[in-house]
Amino acid sequence: MKLARIEDFEVGQHVTFTKTFTEDDVQRFIEITGDVNPLHVDEEFASRTQFGGRVLHGMLTASILSTMVGMVLPGAGAIYRSQTIRFLLPVHIGETVTAHFVVRSIDRAKHRLTIDSWIENGAGKRVLEGTCEAGLLKT
Amino acid sequence: MKLARIEDFEVGQHVTFTKTFTEDDVQRFIEITGDVNPLHVDEEFASRTQFGGRVLHGMLTASILSTMVGMVLPGAGAIYRSQTIRFLLPVHIGETVTAHFVVRSIDRAKHRLTIDSWIENGAGKRVLEGTCEAGLLKT
Repeated sequence: MKLARIEDFEVGQHVTFTKTFTEDDVQRFIEITGDVNPLHVDEEFASRTQFGGRVLHGMLTASILSTMVGMVLPGAGAIYRSQTIRFLLPVHIGETVTAHFVVRSIDRAKHRLTIDSWIENGAGKRVLEGTCEAGLLKT
Repeated sequence: MKLARIEDFEVGQHVTFTKTFTEDDVQRFIEITGDVNPLHVDEEFASRTQFGGRVLHGMLTASILSTMVGMVLPGAGAIYRSQTIRFLLPVHIGETVTAHFVVRSIDRAKHRLTIDSWIENGAGKRVLEGTCEAGLLKT
């Protein structure tokens, strides 16, 4: 297996991952977490709120930051060190979103990356944003 | 439905939620995210790393922060505004962890809470920690 090495990365590097969140994803997230907050499961309730209908759990949307770290950048060999998340806009079931990672800085001695991370909806608006720190496995 | 109101909360309030993460949870998280990083799926690989065996996706462990916000504190009526996460220790499949929320401050005018949040393993060591900001639905 080829593991990521710190030499593979450069500041400004930009990668993306796109996903459409389905009803099945919501059900899987509920099976994991037990989070049946009415905003996520009760259409009649949610339609009367400022969101105008059921929305994804914010941490479900954020789950694709894991995909980014584990599969895209750094990918195999990554160690997730930290993540900040500001939830900016709701995501409705069936929406397609795209996660973006841009390498902000690299600590080549410690084999660590700091990454600007955000997720956009189909209209190009950010639904969440934050900073990711990832290291690399000792090999 | 009874929604949380800002009057329901006080600084120092402490709530918890305990969960055992199973192989099924890992598979559900993979179905959602597609994150099949070898640390999470390849025991032979993972056993040769500093982790000594397969570990949960960090964001899978963090998913119970959603349960805390949506079901425990604030609960119904909550709006997740932000979360910071520092991953401190690996969590192995089958481990039981407990999420803790302690209310740090309350903005009664804006109907918002700032919450110290962390997750402990069975030995009482923190596996992740961070700060959560939650608001309340306008009612």
